[in-house]
Amino acid sequence: MKKLGVLGTGMVGTTIANKLLELGYEVMMGSRTASNDKQKAWILNKGDKAHIGTFDQAAAFGELLFYCVKGDTAVQIAKSLTPSNIKGKTIIDISNPLDFSKGMPPFLAPALTNTNSLGEELQKVMSEAHLVKSLNIVSSTIMVSEYKPGDSPTMFISGNNADAKQETMHLLKAFGWKDIIDLGDITTARGTEMLLPLWVRTMQTLGHPNFAFTVSR
Amino acid sequence: MKKLGVLGTGMVGTTIANKLLELGYEVMMGSRTASNDKQKAWILNKGDKAHIGTFDQAAAFGELLFYCVKGDTAVQIAKSLTPSNIKGKTIIDISNPLDFSKGMPPFLAPALTNTNSLGEELQKVMSEAHLVKSLNIVSSTIMVSEYKPGDSPTMFISGNNADAKQETMHLLKAFGWKDIIDLGDITTARGTEMLLPLWVRTMQTLGHPNFAFTVSR
Repeated sequence: MKKLGVLGTGMVGTTIANKLLELGYEVMMGSRTASNDKQKAWILNKGDKAHIGTFDQAAAFGELLFYCVKGDTAVQIAKSLTPSNIKGKTIIDISNPLDFSKGMPPFLAPALTNTNSLGEELQKVMSEAHLVKSLNIVSSTIMVSEYKPGDSPTMFISGNNADAKQETMHLLKAFGWKDIIDLGDITTARGTEMLLPLWVRTMQTLGHPNFAFTVSR
Repeated sequence: MKKLGVLGTGMVGTTIANKLLELGYEVMMGSRTASNDKQKAWILNKGDKAHIGTFDQAAAFGELLFYCVKGDTAVQIAKSLTPSNIKGKTIIDISNPLDFSKGMPPFLAPALTNTNSLGEELQKVMSEAHLVKSLNIVSSTIMVSEYKPGDSPTMFISGNNADAKQETMHLLKAFGWKDIIDLGDITTARGTEMLLPLWVRTMQTLGHPNFAFTVSR
C-alpha cells in the first residue's frame, strides 16, 4: 500500500496527512472545494508525494482512507462519495458525533449515540467500504506522536472486516500505539464515541488535551 | 464520622459494607424489605458493628450514605426516602442507568444520558442531600481493593458540594485510590456514566472485569 487518502482538512486531517508523508506514503488530502486555504497552506513545500483534491478525488486516490471530517457533516459527506471510489477499501473513521450547538461541553447527537453510533451510520452509508473506528478518543497530536502519555495508553478498534482491522492495526503501530484492543464489530464504536463526554470534561479539568486513557489490567 | 449507611444489597453494596466494617465503621445495610436473604447472610458473624434495615432506616442511621442500588429502580427508591433522613448528608452514588431489557451489552436509559444523567436526576430527587457520583466505573472488587490494576488507575468524582466531595475523597483514599480527578459539578456525571458502554465491551473483550481506566498524562 503506497497511496492514502485523507478526507478532512482540520487539525486531525492535517496531523494524519503529515504523519503519513513522514512514513513515506503518497497522500491526497480532500475537502469539499478541492483547494481550500488549509489545503493550499498544507501542500507548500511538501514535495511531490503530497496532493490535494475534492473528497471524492481523495477517496479515489487512496488505497486506504482516513475519515477526519466533523461529526455534524460526516454522514452527508459520506453520502456524496461515488460508491466505486470507496469500494472494498478500508476507511479509518476518526469522526465523533459531537454537537456543539449548545456550547461547551458538547453532547452527542441523540440519533447517533447509545443505541446507534456515527461509526455504524457511516458503515451503512458507505456499505461498499470497510469501516474501522479508531483514534477518535485522543487529541490529534497524541494520535501520531512517538511519545505517548503514560507507559502505554490504549487504542481501541471497532469494525466488521478482519483484513481492514489488520491494516488499521499496522498503521496504528506505525503511529506509536502498542496497546491496541479490538472490541469487535462496528457497533462497539458506541463505546468509544461515548467516551468523548468524559474526555472533554477531563480535558477541561486538566486544562490541556495531552492525555490518553489506559486500560490498566 | 462513625456510622455509615449502605443502600443496596447486591455485589456492590455487600463489597462496600464489608470494606467499611474492615475500616472500623459501624454500618447499616438497607434494602426494600429490611431483612432479605442477602442481608441475613451478610450479617452472620459480622459482630455488633453490622446492622440491617430498610432503605429508610439505613438512610437515617448513616452520617454518610453509599447509594448502591440498581439503575432501573434508583430514582424510585430515592423518591421513597424520608427527606429528613438524608438532609445535609453526603450520598456517594455508585449507580448507573443501565438498561438490560435488550440483553448484553446494555444501553443507557435514554432519558438519563447524554443531556442528563442518573446522578443529576438523583440529586434533583434527593435535593436535601449532597450527591457525589463516584466508583461507578469499576467492578466492585476494584472499588475497595488495596491492590489496583496498573500503576495507579484513576477515579473521578462529580458533585455540587465541596465538603461532600472532601468526605468522598477521604473514603476513596481509604479504599486505595491515589489518582482522583474532581471533574466538577454533578452534571459531569454524564461523562463517567457514559463510560459504561466502553467498560462493558472492554470487559467482554478481555473476558474479565479486573481492569480500570487510567488517565495517562
